[in-house]
Amino acid sequence: MTYCVAAVLDQGLVFLSDSRTNAGMDQISTYRKMTVFERAGDRVIVLLTSGNLSISQNVIEVLSQGPLSDRLWSASSMADISVVVGEALRQIHQRDQMALNSFGLEFNCSFLVGGQIRGERCRLFNVYTAGNFIETSPESHYFQLGESKYGKPVLDRVLKPETSLDDATKCLLISMDSTLKSNLSVGLPLDLLVYETDALAVSRVAKINEGNTYFEGIRSRWGKLLQDAFHDLPDPDWESIASDKSKSVFFASMFHQEQQ
Amino acid sequence: MTYCVAAVLDQGLVFLSDSRTNAGMDQISTYRKMTVFERAGDRVIVLLTSGNLSISQNVIEVLSQGPLSDRLWSASSMADISVVVGEALRQIHQRDQMALNSFGLEFNCSFLVGGQIRGERCRLFNVYTAGNFIETSPESHYFQLGESKYGKPVLDRVLKPETSLDDATKCLLISMDSTLKSNLSVGLPLDLLVYETDALAVSRVAKINEGNTYFEGIRSRWGKLLQDAFHDLPDPDWESIASDKSKSVFFASMFHQEQQ
Repeated sequence: MTYCVAAVLDQGLVFLSDSRTNAGMDQISTYRKMTVFERAGDRVIVLLTSGNLSISQNVIEVLSQGPLSDRLWSASSMADISVVVGEALRQIHQRDQMALNSFGLEFNCSFLVGGQIRGERCRLFNVYTAGNFIETSPESHYFQLGESKYGKPVLDRVLKPETSLDDATKCLLISMDSTLKSNLSVGLPLDLLVYETDALAVSRVAKINEGNTYFEGIRSRWGKLLQDAFHDLPDPDWESIASDKSKSVFFASMFHQEQQ
Repeated sequence: MTYCVAAVLDQGLVFLSDSRTNAGMDQISTYRKMTVFERAGDRVIVLLTSGNLSISQNVIEVLSQGPLSDRLWSASSMADISVVVGEALRQIHQRDQMALNSFGLEFNCSFLVGGQIRGERCRLFNVYTAGNFIETSPESHYFQLGESKYGKPVLDRVLKPETSLDDATKCLLISMDSTLKSNLSVGLPLDLLVYETDALAVSRVAKINEGNTYFEGIRSRWGKLLQDAFHDLPDPDWESIASDKSKSVFFASMFHQEQQ
């Protein structure tokens, strides 16, 4: 499994991916799921991927050389970049799908595609296995791939377009932490990339391994902060919420027996 | 779908269930998923259920009258209660499974069974569809049924055996809130029940509907507290985590082109 998440904010973009690949519980490897295409002053394109590793590696391969690579470096909008990524996916689909299916394997691979091309704003897309894609909207300004449920509530609660890049980075790391704690198929190291609007070059990038002091620090501090937040929530106001348990209408079933 | 959660703590037990039942997106109803058997001074038994409603209702039916009901009221341990619930499940399985299967329906129903019988401590069990069951342990002192992923991280971070009943109630409500926000197949009203160790009677019970002032209050306050917690987390310490992006070893793939 995989967990990748990316957000588009007023100040820029933040990308975070894990690196666990597994073919069964006893066959676990580490492969990076982040790929960056950068021409400083002109364009930064970041790809995060989930799904079958042989497919995603081959998509990256055809984006790195040949005609699709030329189109990636010359496209004038991030939407066109997503078209190119979709075409790369379709090219591998055409070549491999029947063979995969004959072994009972599903053709399954998708990409988050984000970045900025000079003259455009920052944009973020989700390119599906079929090569079709959607873009974020002001109401939905992040995308996730893979094991997305554990890490979703904190994104929904915290991320807003005006969230700073630092706060968004912390929020994505906590979202990843929630996923790491609950799902063995998602694992370190993490790849983290921050892009500032109009920088037209990667602003900050980090690999986060076991024992990374900052990440370990916020993981443990987060637990404490959540505990404190619970103490700050008002205690249950039983006067206002409590039901009279004698009114059995409040229960689908409540069975009483007198003490014998 | 369903979301039910129950926790066993030093001070007692907390149970929370939603009430949405659906057979497709366009066929949504409200059915309570909480059932209580209480004989004050002797036993309190609380059941939460997920799965096929026709199965769970029939299990409750055979637990409410007849020989299995007699055993439920006379059992001397919560483990024996779980055996009885398991037998009720197997009885309905034997009667209905072939007919369900012939219509392509899976026989699917499980129960959380918690409470206290005089002379025993508070206990909490998870009874599976096959009628087998497990009990919580000091390391895993809560169970969930149904759509469990969204609401799990906050439980893992906050619940400890020594957590007070008030804090645990808040934590379960926030766990439910995270699930409600993300999954349309989980819905209000909620049934909330708190049992204090050795009370041998239901301590507090509430039905939480749309517009419940307390629940709406903590839902909105929770968002604010999370925001504050993020501000309190240290900002990314890029000195310690940042990679030199020229060291391509930090990326699976990083492609550069010089500006033309």
